[in-house]
Amino acid sequence: MKNKRKIINDPVFGFINIPNEFLYDIIQHRFFQRLHRIKQLGVTGYVYPGAQHTRMQHSLGALYLTSEAVKELRSKGHEITEEEANGVMAAILLHDIGHGPYSHVLENTIIQGVSHEQISLLLMQKINNEMGGKLDLAIKIFQNRYHKKFLHQLVSSQLDMDRLDYLRRDSFFTGVVEGNIGSARIIKMLDVADDNLVIEQKGVHSIENYLMARRFMYWQVYLHKTSIATEIMLIKILERAKFLHSSLPLTKGEETETNNVRENIAISHTPSPHKWREQGRAVFATPSLSFFLSNNINAENFCENPDVLEHFVNIDDSDIISAIKVWTNHSDKVLSILCKNFVNRVLFKTLEQAPMTEKQKQDLQKKYSEILGINLDETVFFFSEQTLSSNTYEVKDDKIFIQFTNGAIRDIAEVSDILNPAILNRYVQKHLLCYLKI
Amino acid sequence: MKNKRKIINDPVFGFINIPNEFLYDIIQHRFFQRLHRIKQLGVTGYVYPGAQHTRMQHSLGALYLTSEAVKELRSKGHEITEEEANGVMAAILLHDIGHGPYSHVLENTIIQGVSHEQISLLLMQKINNEMGGKLDLAIKIFQNRYHKKFLHQLVSSQLDMDRLDYLRRDSFFTGVVEGNIGSARIIKMLDVADDNLVIEQKGVHSIENYLMARRFMYWQVYLHKTSIATEIMLIKILERAKFLHSSLPLTKGEETETNNVRENIAISHTPSPHKWREQGRAVFATPSLSFFLSNNINAENFCENPDVLEHFVNIDDSDIISAIKVWTNHSDKVLSILCKNFVNRVLFKTLEQAPMTEKQKQDLQKKYSEILGINLDETVFFFSEQTLSSNTYEVKDDKIFIQFTNGAIRDIAEVSDILNPAILNRYVQKHLLCYLKI
Amino acid sequence: MKNKRKIINDPVFGFINIPNEFLYDIIQHRFFQRLHRIKQLGVTGYVYPGAQHTRMQHSLGALYLTSEAVKELRSKGHEITEEEANGVMAAILLHDIGHGPYSHVLENTIIQGVSHEQISLLLMQKINNEMGGKLDLAIKIFQNRYHKKFLHQLVSSQLDMDRLDYLRRDSFFTGVVEGNIGSARIIKMLDVADDNLVIEQKGVHSIENYLMARRFMYWQVYLHKTSIATEIMLIKILERAKFLHSSLPLTKGEETETNNVRENIAISHTPSPHKWREQGRAVFATPSLSFFLSNNINAENFCENPDVLEHFVNIDDSDIISAIKVWTNHSDKVLSILCKNFVNRVLFKTLEQAPMTEKQKQDLQKKYSEILGINLDETVFFFSEQTLSSNTYEVKDDKIFIQFTNGAIRDIAEVSDILNPAILNRYVQKHLLCYLKI
Amino acid sequence: MKNKRKIINDPVFGFINIPNEFLYDIIQHRFFQRLHRIKQLGVTGYVYPGAQHTRMQHSLGALYLTSEAVKELRSKGHEITEEEANGVMAAILLHDIGHGPYSHVLENTIIQGVSHEQISLLLMQKINNEMGGKLDLAIKIFQNRYHKKFLHQLVSSQLDMDRLDYLRRDSFFTGVVEGNIGSARIIKMLDVADDNLVIEQKGVHSIENYLMARRFMYWQVYLHKTSIATEIMLIKILERAKFLHSSLPLTKGEETETNNVRENIAISHTPSPHKWREQGRAVFATPSLSFFLSNNINAENFCENPDVLEHFVNIDDSDIISAIKVWTNHSDKVLSILCKNFVNRVLFKTLEQAPMTEKQKQDLQKKYSEILGINLDETVFFFSEQTLSSNTYEVKDDKIFIQFTNGAIRDIAEVSDILNPAILNRYVQKHLLCYLKI
Repeated sequence: MKNKRKIINDPVFGFINIPNEFLYDIIQHRFFQRLHRIKQLGVTGYVYPGAQHTRMQHSLGALYLTSEAVKELRSKGHEITEEEANGVMAAILLHDIGHGPYSHVLENTIIQGVSHEQISLLLMQKINNEMGGKLDLAIKIFQNRYHKKFLHQLVSSQLDMDRLDYLRRDSFFTGVVEGNIGSARIIKMLDVADDNLVIEQKGVHSIENYLMARRFMYWQVYLHKTSIATEIMLIKILERAKFLHSSLPLTKGEETETNNVRENIAISHTPSPHKWREQGRAVFATPSLSFFLSNNINAENFCENPDVLEHFVNIDDSDIISAIKVWTNHSDKVLSILCKNFVNRVLFKTLEQAPMTEKQKQDLQKKYSEILGINLDETVFFFSEQTLSSNTYEVKDDKIFIQFTNGAIRDIAEVSDILNPAILNRYVQKHLLCYLKI
Repeated sequence: MKNKRKIINDPVFGFINIPNEFLYDIIQHRFFQRLHRIKQLGVTGYVYPGAQHTRMQHSLGALYLTSEAVKELRSKGHEITEEEANGVMAAILLHDIGHGPYSHVLENTIIQGVSHEQISLLLMQKINNEMGGKLDLAIKIFQNRYHKKFLHQLVSSQLDMDRLDYLRRDSFFTGVVEGNIGSARIIKMLDVADDNLVIEQKGVHSIENYLMARRFMYWQVYLHKTSIATEIMLIKILERAKFLHSSLPLTKGEETETNNVRENIAISHTPSPHKWREQGRAVFATPSLSFFLSNNINAENFCENPDVLEHFVNIDDSDIISAIKVWTNHSDKVLSILCKNFVNRVLFKTLEQAPMTEKQKQDLQKKYSEILGINLDETVFFFSEQTLSSNTYEVKDDKIFIQFTNGAIRDIAEVSDILNPAILNRYVQKHLLCYLKI
Repeated sequence: MKNKRKIINDPVFGFINIPNEFLYDIIQHRFFQRLHRIKQLGVTGYVYPGAQHTRMQHSLGALYLTSEAVKELRSKGHEITEEEANGVMAAILLHDIGHGPYSHVLENTIIQGVSHEQISLLLMQKINNEMGGKLDLAIKIFQNRYHKKFLHQLVSSQLDMDRLDYLRRDSFFTGVVEGNIGSARIIKMLDVADDNLVIEQKGVHSIENYLMARRFMYWQVYLHKTSIATEIMLIKILERAKFLHSSLPLTKGEETETNNVRENIAISHTPSPHKWREQGRAVFATPSLSFFLSNNINAENFCENPDVLEHFVNIDDSDIISAIKVWTNHSDKVLSILCKNFVNRVLFKTLEQAPMTEKQKQDLQKKYSEILGINLDETVFFFSEQTLSSNTYEVKDDKIFIQFTNGAIRDIAEVSDILNPAILNRYVQKHLLCYLKI
Repeated sequence: MKNKRKIINDPVFGFINIPNEFLYDIIQHRFFQRLHRIKQLGVTGYVYPGAQHTRMQHSLGALYLTSEAVKELRSKGHEITEEEANGVMAAILLHDIGHGPYSHVLENTIIQGVSHEQISLLLMQKINNEMGGKLDLAIKIFQNRYHKKFLHQLVSSQLDMDRLDYLRRDSFFTGVVEGNIGSARIIKMLDVADDNLVIEQKGVHSIENYLMARRFMYWQVYLHKTSIATEIMLIKILERAKFLHSSLPLTKGEETETNNVRENIAISHTPSPHKWREQGRAVFATPSLSFFLSNNINAENFCENPDVLEHFVNIDDSDIISAIKVWTNHSDKVLSILCKNFVNRVLFKTLEQAPMTEKQKQDLQKKYSEILGINLDETVFFFSEQTLSSNTYEVKDDKIFIQFTNGAIRDIAEVSDILNPAILNRYVQKHLLCYLKI
């Protein structure tokens, strides 16, 4: 019976075995289960309707690839003890556990200056406490504090199992077949030399292919103009909601709780970046979302106040979406317009163009002000200029090493005849205007 | 530019063309966009993590198959005018538009006696009004009031494009490869005889295969025991929430709105089915979910009060999930236990067994009462007996016809050497106890 | 370097590892390499152009599935020693090694009364001698003489890895997606009870599905009417060639060799089944094909004369095809017509009808005789009546056992609600006339 | 009934419709059917066992893609008449019809100085005569003599449907998933500007991806070292056979035929490139293969003597393979060693190294001479130095044009930020020694 629950049907890799109780317990943990409610690709579903897969699916897929990589490396004579295998598998399972909903959006709005990696670590430590230290090694590996460095590289490096899974999985669910990488072939070519993950010489073209597929996915999916525009909308919505909510006289029920927080950790109020008119009007939200709308939370708060972390893990995609739908009827015109458009998929348009001059900007704002009947300083919620850049095939800090049959080890950038440094170091930039079409 | 937006990347069928502006406008309608926020398979994602696909994806897939079927039938000499093609494609696009979140759950809890088909029709009519009657033909086809009956059969029959898409799509996303039907082959074998969709003789085995795949999907996915148990939990949660919420003294903000509703349509209050203790305690909910928790809505209300429909289309998966998470902290023990377990995937267990005797039931209730510290009559929220039945390969009312090369037309049940009536009419039943493990 | 060669890229299963040198040596053996030149599905490529895959690919795929099954059974606590694992894997690798080109055709024409299983065994024994007895256990398992019976069942039974591979592979290459079985799921559900392979209770539907897919493949692919008709053509061609060749005065070069054979093993000449006219005209053939055209070889010859086996392994698809192309210009009208049609894909037509009466037959023959300008008794080369029968889902001798969670073990035919005995025992028969259209 | 035969099941694209009788008749032509017996990738099956697909499958796939491209271009407003559509589809069907077995091998051994394109044209013209000129337009398009140049580009250019199909198909059957290109996406982005095929601006990354996939397939499949080594073996075998056969005193039966040829077209005998010893010993071959072994055929012969073409279309993979198997027993040691190794997959080894010095070469030859007991000048059959070069992503003569949304049209090499000219023009070269390991 137990056995039954330990096999997971995955459309990408077929059946995924959960190797043992230890890893199964991690999967059953409420922090991990939460990933079931967070989409891997956030708003991308607006562009690629198939992209509904969750961070949980990705984490399970990365676990699968890691278990394959462990088998492969062992078969090549590298010792990986059972404990180490469990450690690296636990680390990969948990590597994304700190992601919030619409991660990049959230990290730039309702929380600030806290990366999901930091939160992942906090959550791992919390689970570790509950599990009586069983995650010690996993955390060491995650933090690259374990002496076998290549284990960390399986979790986080240019060739980690994280990337191998998400590229393949995102390709699968978006239907963008060009992003499909040969994860199995790459794993077959993994080796370890001088405690570094390396790729066998005959794998050079596979790596080139992988880097190109990654680049393709960046421009076709991750940095898709409409996705970017939709993220901008979401940021504007949350900024506006936070602005409206931030100086709100607290209602009775919430008061005690949030007051406590404020006293304990001295969270500053949102400073109003512009002088917007209608601050102080309550917006509907679940208590935990409300907490982040009312308070300015930084990294320190996360570490010091356990409530912050608890509120954080309460939030997922549904808090954001359910609130935005309610906000479509909010009396604040800025908020309601943005939310209506977002909900009904009337997305910001995009223009690839040179940055606007000050004059162009003022003209645009004037136009919005007149047509929408809002203040000039409120018009900033309806457009945004973005510079997209990607040098995703760069191998700057952390290189991909190729091991030659004669034993020599060289950076892929030196080996490949197409990925030459001149190109690798070139950032590709696109300047984008995202704006409400009226 | 226009063109660009009319191709949709679908992981199942590749690229789906939206044939024209008319159909594109339907897709852009807010009622249709709402399907983006409703998962096709509800709670099934708890069992098959890949099953995150939406009702929107399914509707687009069914559109694709319908457009293929139209091409095929035309190529066999059957006239389908442009208007009819648009009508049948619009009908299939909209056939599921009346689904709420966790459809079967919802239809048995917060609304009653209203099928999603009825709501679909109401929503189609509303869109039709907005579009100035352009959906007249689509609605006729949907309701089987159009003289070319086979067009309706493409939308709704034993072999409709709805089923062809959902079986294939659900198979794809769950990873249950056995459910993969040969939709392309079946469409190649479609024909029309006496205004009925028929299958060419050489397609007999394809149809048998399709019926078997359907049967497999029923037992392996749609009626999966853990899915059923999870649906039961969700039903119990919503019943409890509705009970608690129903006699709630209304708060100021909501009062006006919901009072209006009550006056207009005389919605009765929830009669308490049991004498539970703690009725009248507010539960957190979005306004539209709150509306359904506070009122007992029936089919008549839907037809007569436009607000009801408006509230209905406001609700999607996120309202339910975000509320349940908040309810994990509710002071009502029954609600909070159920919600905590649901959120953290501590699901009801299942036992395939004979129906419990009255004695067994009382023992179980007594045990729950003692261990959980709740009233005896509250224990009914922690278990449920279900009889699953499926005769999915039955072809009773609406048959699948096979056309022989000599022109004769016969029911598949007469033709197939394995799908004989004795078997086709046999209902398979499984009696299931779903219960909280303590 | 070694390592490199031991991974095989398989379009069906991805990468197939050859577990060790022992198995690799078998694969490198010339008898195994020969399977590279024999198509798995013979003439089926005429109907499904994708069906070009070889018996070698199938054998490697079956090896892969067997290695997966061994892992699964071990994980469930059943001891399978390294030696046993190698034995069963060697046995599955070699299970088809006795197949000749166009197997069913060959077994009914140029050899008689020798099954490919018998030849497989002879070849295994020969390899075993060369390998110094390393195949002893594999042969025991193959012959079901090893005490762990379930190992034999992995190689040959209703649920063997042979079938799991060929159904999936044939489905893949023909493009008949409906035949795709869930091999991975079935393997996950394998268990051993009382030394029998059994399927866990929850796998009942998978087995039903597998049996139905198998049935589908039979009618849609293996017994496809055009395939059958093409096989008939090939049989007629080889019969005619053998007839013409059999009383041939031997040429100088061949004389010694074939004379030897004749002397040693007293192979009788082909008795002419009809009094055809033009016996004794040489047909072009490779020496080994010529050997089988000139001699009537039976099972005894295979066992006693090593040359027979050697000639047999020399023959593959290319001997047959290259000869037939030359025969298109043969002076024998019967042979040249058949061969021209075969080469240019002017295939026999088929009619599903009642067996012909003697009168109908005579009329047909008369017509052929007149139109083609041949003798009446030669007309039998241009038509054939066939009775196709399939009860492929029958489980008569060798049953598929289901193990219930309570430990009970029952036959699938008793368990399944659709595969009832009445149906299982019913042979489906189709009577077919295959004939040259003129 | 007709209809039935016009749908082909293709594992890559699903169902392929043969649009009309005209195209169906081409497919049924014996010259086209011959492609059924020629593997698309020749000896590659030795490295990738799945690569058994035929040139016929490829031609049908290219037909499918062309029909899709025609639909797409028409939908963008470009006129393509029915006649033109048939012309371009016939041209793509027939574009590879001149390929012989193991094409590159054959073109360098038993025929000389005749490209398969030339032979394709000759065969098209012959079919055209038989069809009463119905292929006039197809031939014009094939030869780029038709005024709508873009139609020719669909058949032959950097982005032709030939390449789109073979990359995708070869990727599919080898199992090298990295070569899978997004053929559907590329076709969606096709347009015509100034009578040139162009790609819409948003397709730049797809084209980059396509070029990279192509490059990957070159190094991983088409120029795979073991494939190259195997082709070398095959070339050596055919050269040796030709040498042995060329001055052969003709046997009675063949004499008339080949003498005719010699008289008519004055084919010179093979000049012996080295002074090998044992010239003049007959090798077994089918008559048509024998013809090419006995005569030196050049382009002129093909044009002037219809028998040459007829012999050519008689040859396919089976002639080569069946002969080589017979040659394993040939009395010429060089031939028999090569053939035994080839048949039993004891392939030449490869070393990537600098070209050998004269001294190294002599040492190697001396070694072979001693160990194999052959003359020094015969040792050249056991090794070969090859320089592989590929600039497959180069766009020199015939460019890939990108059409910007503002109408401008530029070469992909100028547009892409990674495919810069410096790299595009760089030939990658690998120097390879292929040799018999002893």
